Amino acid sequence: MSDAGEVSYADIEAAAERIAGVVHRTPVMTSRRLDQHAGAQIFLKCENLQRAGAFKIRGAYNTLAQLTEQQRRAGVVAFSSGNHAQAVALAASALGIPATIVMPYDSPASKLAATKEYGAEVVNYDRYTEDRTAIATALAEERGLTLVPPFDHVGVIAGQGTVAKELIEDVGGLDAVLTPLGGGGLLAGTALSVRALAPDAKLYGVEPEAGDDGAQSFRAGRIVSIPAPKTIADGAQTTSLGTHTFPIIRSLVDDVLTASDAELASAMRLLAGTLKLVVEPTGALGLAAALRLAQEDLAGARIGVVLSGGNVDLDRYAALLTSG
Amino acid sequence: MSDAGEVSYADIEAAAERIAGVVHRTPVMTSRRLDQHAGAQIFLKCENLQRAGAFKIRGAYNTLAQLTEQQRRAGVVAFSSGNHAQAVALAASALGIPATIVMPYDSPASKLAATKEYGAEVVNYDRYTEDRTAIATALAEERGLTLVPPFDHVGVIAGQGTVAKELIEDVGGLDAVLTPLGGGGLLAGTALSVRALAPDAKLYGVEPEAGDDGAQSFRAGRIVSIPAPKTIADGAQTTSLGTHTFPIIRSLVDDVLTASDAELASAMRLLAGTLKLVVEPTGALGLAAALRLAQEDLAGARIGVVLSGGNVDLDRYAALLTSG
Repeated sequence: MSDAGEVSYADIEAAAERIAGVVHRTPVMTSRRLDQHAGAQIFLKCENLQRAGAFKIRGAYNTLAQLTEQQRRAGVVAFSSGNHAQAVALAASALGIPATIVMPYDSPASKLAATKEYGAEVVNYDRYTEDRTAIATALAEERGLTLVPPFDHVGVIAGQGTVAKELIEDVGGLDAVLTPLGGGGLLAGTALSVRALAPDAKLYGVEPEAGDDGAQSFRAGRIVSIPAPKTIADGAQTTSLGTHTFPIIRSLVDDVLTASDAELASAMRLLAGTLKLVVEPTGALGLAAALRLAQEDLAGARIGVVLSGGNVDLDRYAALLTSG
Repeated sequence: MSDAGEVSYADIEAAAERIAGVVHRTPVMTSRRLDQHAGAQIFLKCENLQRAGAFKIRGAYNTLAQLTEQQRRAGVVAFSSGNHAQAVALAASALGIPATIVMPYDSPASKLAATKEYGAEVVNYDRYTEDRTAIATALAEERGLTLVPPFDHVGVIAGQGTVAKELIEDVGGLDAVLTPLGGGGLLAGTALSVRALAPDAKLYGVEPEAGDDGAQSFRAGRIVSIPAPKTIADGAQTTSLGTHTFPIIRSLVDDVLTASDAELASAMRLLAGTLKLVVEPTGALGLAAALRLAQEDLAGARIGVVLSGGNVDLDRYAALLTSG
């Protein structure tokens, strides 16, 4: 593990080679109807169509593939509100590594089930009263497991950076790029790729309105922590950015924006109706903010948007589709 | 216009060249979780991701692109329960041809809206009491319009045949291919491509249980008509096969199967939860039957399935997702 600042675009290029053949190169989708609705040209990087339903497999596999033989034999442990859990379980399964996953009791049932299907042992906790880091750390010490953090790790950041690398390689120049923001692994990796491949593009992280610790941190110039926010964006219920992700975001990102739960539901409906894509609430953060920006500074612009995942319980999804 | 039997694989190759650059070459999607669930290898040809949300643009554009300059100036008329309407409207718009579309009052609101968005004039009728063919024919005569039938036309059949051509080109040999069956344009075109490119593959059309005129016709060896069936598969509420489609289906297809509305809803949930794809009820006919066959004769087989469209009102879609 390296210190903050030690991850570079070269690490993303190395990650891209490491994950090739295991991780999908997901499609970039466009829609004339979406563009007409938005008043801009939107390029959707469809990580909802990624293996295990989210971008998280990129960082997880990139990290696990670099473990020593001894670390692989002992196994790995991860804590996650869902998508990182499935990603570590799947990456571990692909590499023949035993995996233990610490997940909140109230994770979407589909995420709990998928994590178990990939062969991982699941340990549950209460996200509002218990400290998942402490639980995972204790398990790591007791059993000699390697902890795979969900975002604050150079291997994870480098893996997540492959999303924007592929996006820009596939569509060329962009005026702006937007990604969801939880702990900042995706945004930090995206920032490194965007500054290397499309240096003039505006770059925005988008977090739920109820959990705007990233925006607060960005403006304060230091990591601000908040209580676990209540939002439909369960993948972005993080309480603070990380010591590895924050410095990268602070120096390379143009701004941190927020989207309300109502805006997320509206973007999800647009994606279902126009693109025929199921996207989870967190996955719609970038599009929700892009639609707003396209009404202001970015009218007519070429905007890259990362749809980060599609893992949402169908009952909950159906309720959100009819909530508008 | 030619007689039945006059459409061949060469016409599909010509259609493929004609539609290139206008019609999307849609992706073929796979999922390890789907394959585990099914007990077979499923290759999903995603026409729900096609322009205007369904395969219908292929046949419509192929037909309209062959009109004379005089026919183009006068304009076209079409009747459709939805997807053909949008397809003709979009193809006409792309070619600068005026379009009039005859659609039932109870078409999904999203389909009515999209047809108007593409610039077509919409004429409504009652699908249970009025004869859409008569209405469209009268309009054609009054206004000198060219009628573009939804399925029973060699240009339409040849265009729809490009779906299976692309599928087999992209994934290679298949043990079986399944497509939805309404009036038979997609199935007849698919049959010509499958017999040319994967002659040993089993080929099945799948229609709603409540509207099994295709299965009846296939067994009787003549076209059997039924009253408009009540089913959630609004794209397959046809009352009979056509005089162009039936002979092709009769001679080249292995069998006509059915799927119940409950099986369609179940397949739609699987597609949303596992593939992150919004598919309309009609679009799920092939997968619903494939899941059954994979439990019987086709266990472990390589099965190509056409997801024919994704145009479904979101309120209705949400209700179907929670109906299981």
